[in-house]
Formats: sequence, C-alpha cells, structure tokens
Amino acid sequence: MNGPKDRLRLWLRLLKVVRGIEGQLRENLRQEFATTLPRFDMLAALSRHPEGLKMSRLSGVLRVSNGNVTGIADRLAEEGLVKRVPVPGDRRAMILRLTQAGEVEFARQAAAHEAWIDQMLASVSAEDARAMATRLNSFAALVEEKENANAQ
Amino acid sequence: MNGPKDRLRLWLRLLKVVRGIEGQLRENLRQEFATTLPRFDMLAALSRHPEGLKMSRLSGVLRVSNGNVTGIADRLAEEGLVKRVPVPGDRRAMILRLTQAGEVEFARQAAAHEAWIDQMLASVSAEDARAMATRLNSFAALVEEKENANAQ
Repeated sequence: MNGPKDRLRLWLRLLKVVRGIEGQLRENLRQEFATTLPRFDMLAALSRHPEGLKMSRLSGVLRVSNGNVTGIADRLAEEGLVKRVPVPGDRRAMILRLTQAGEVEFARQAAAHEAWIDQMLASVSAEDARAMATRLNSFAALVEEKENANAQ
Repeated sequence: MNGPKDRLRLWLRLLKVVRGIEGQLRENLRQEFATTLPRFDMLAALSRHPEGLKMSRLSGVLRVSNGNVTGIADRLAEEGLVKRVPVPGDRRAMILRLTQAGEVEFARQAAAHEAWIDQMLASVSAEDARAMATRLNSFAALVEEKENANAQ
C-alpha cells in the first residue's frame, strides 16, 4: 500500500493512454481527411456552439495560443468550412461559425472519430466505460476546483 | 446501452482529466521551478536512462519534433543540467545525459511532481488507483498494437 506511488502510476498510465490514442487519432485524421487534431477540435467546438464563438473563447476551449487559433481559422475559412460574422452590438468583434459545408464535413469527421474511438476502446464494455467515466468525473471536478482556486 | 457513445464519452472524459492535470502541472512547474512540461519530461526521460539517450530517441520518447528537442537540450546544457557525450564507436553521434546537477534538480522536481499528483488525485484511494491503472494497461496495450500494426 503506497498511495502517492499508486496515484503517480495511475497518472503516468492515464497520460500514456491519452497520448497513444491522440497519436492514433492524428494519424487517422491525416490519412482519411488530410486534416489535423487542432483543426478537428476547432470544428468540434464550433459544432457545440451553433451560435458561434469569439476567437478569444475558442483559444480557451482549445488550449492553444490566439495566434494558432487565428491561423487555423483563416485556413478553415479559405476552405469554406467556417465564416466570420459580426457580433450584434459590437462593431469590432467577430465570431466564428460553421458554414453549412463545415457542418457536413464535421459530421463526416465526427462519425469516423467515434468509430475509431469505439475500435480503440473495444476492450472496454459499455458498462465499464460508464463506470470509468463517472469515476473520472470526480477527478475532473477536483482539478477544476484547484484551477479556480489558483486563478483567484 | 450504447457502447460507441459510452466509449466516446469515456474518451472525452479521459482527455479532459489529462488536460486539466497537465494544465495544473504546467502552472506549478512555472511557479515553483520556473520550468516547463517539455523540460521536465526531458529530464524525466534522461533520469530513466542513466546511460544517456540519442537525440533521435528522445524526440520519440517526448513526442515533440527534433527541432524542439535540440532547443530544449541546448538550454538545459547551458544551465549545466545535461551534457552531450560522444557515442563509443560512432564518431558523429552524441548522446545526452543528466549531469550530477541535473540529477539533483530533477530529484527536487520529481518529488514535487509526485506530491502535486497525489494532491490532485487525493479522491482516489490507493486501491482504486491500482485497479484503474490495471484497467488502463489493457487499453494501452491495444493502442500500441494498433500503432505497431500501422507502422508495418
């Protein structure tokens, strides 16, 4: 019994699993959609916010720098997958939204993404997946509380 | 019962927990050691390989580009924490090793890192931590098999 070592081992294992799955997702996105994980994540964030998101909100959601967000948004706009629209009541602010083409493209990518995850986690039963997600929920709450406490 | 959706939810939860903990670690490393996660990871990798590592091996271990690895190694060498040593039998190759000062500094950082993780995962009992780590082991093996299959 050694709590600190067991928790450290759990953390290293979580990190390894997440990095392994992310690596596989990057590879699949590249091969099947000629796209990247940050681009996929941006479409996913916009898909969850049909009203659109300010660039500053997006960089918070994606945890990448504002500069990167702008570059990625520019490329997606050139490809017709997102558009910038003015914010009502604020002349200088713009929000980013999926275009209809963007919605269609993201739906294709999201379906593939779900199938890849399903394959990669095939050894986990639906019941175990739910139990682990619930367990992880309590960690996530704890980490968020700490983050908020530090931000004050 | 919906296996694919439950597995997707588990994945999103894993990602959120790992990103939350990583964000907190970045912040703690910055505040307490004026360092970064890639620098910490490089010292950790070298600490696991006292015989030293080739730069190319390091970038595999750290999953960052060779260019970044070189920049980080250069800074750590300037600070006296790592050194480059020739590879016996290969005149042009160099391996990177911790210096004695690097070992001391990494031991301090690693002790703090273990304590931070222990705090962040305080809600997980030692027994649960072991059970989850074992469960995650089987995912990790699955992902690695897929990666190897793709590499062939």
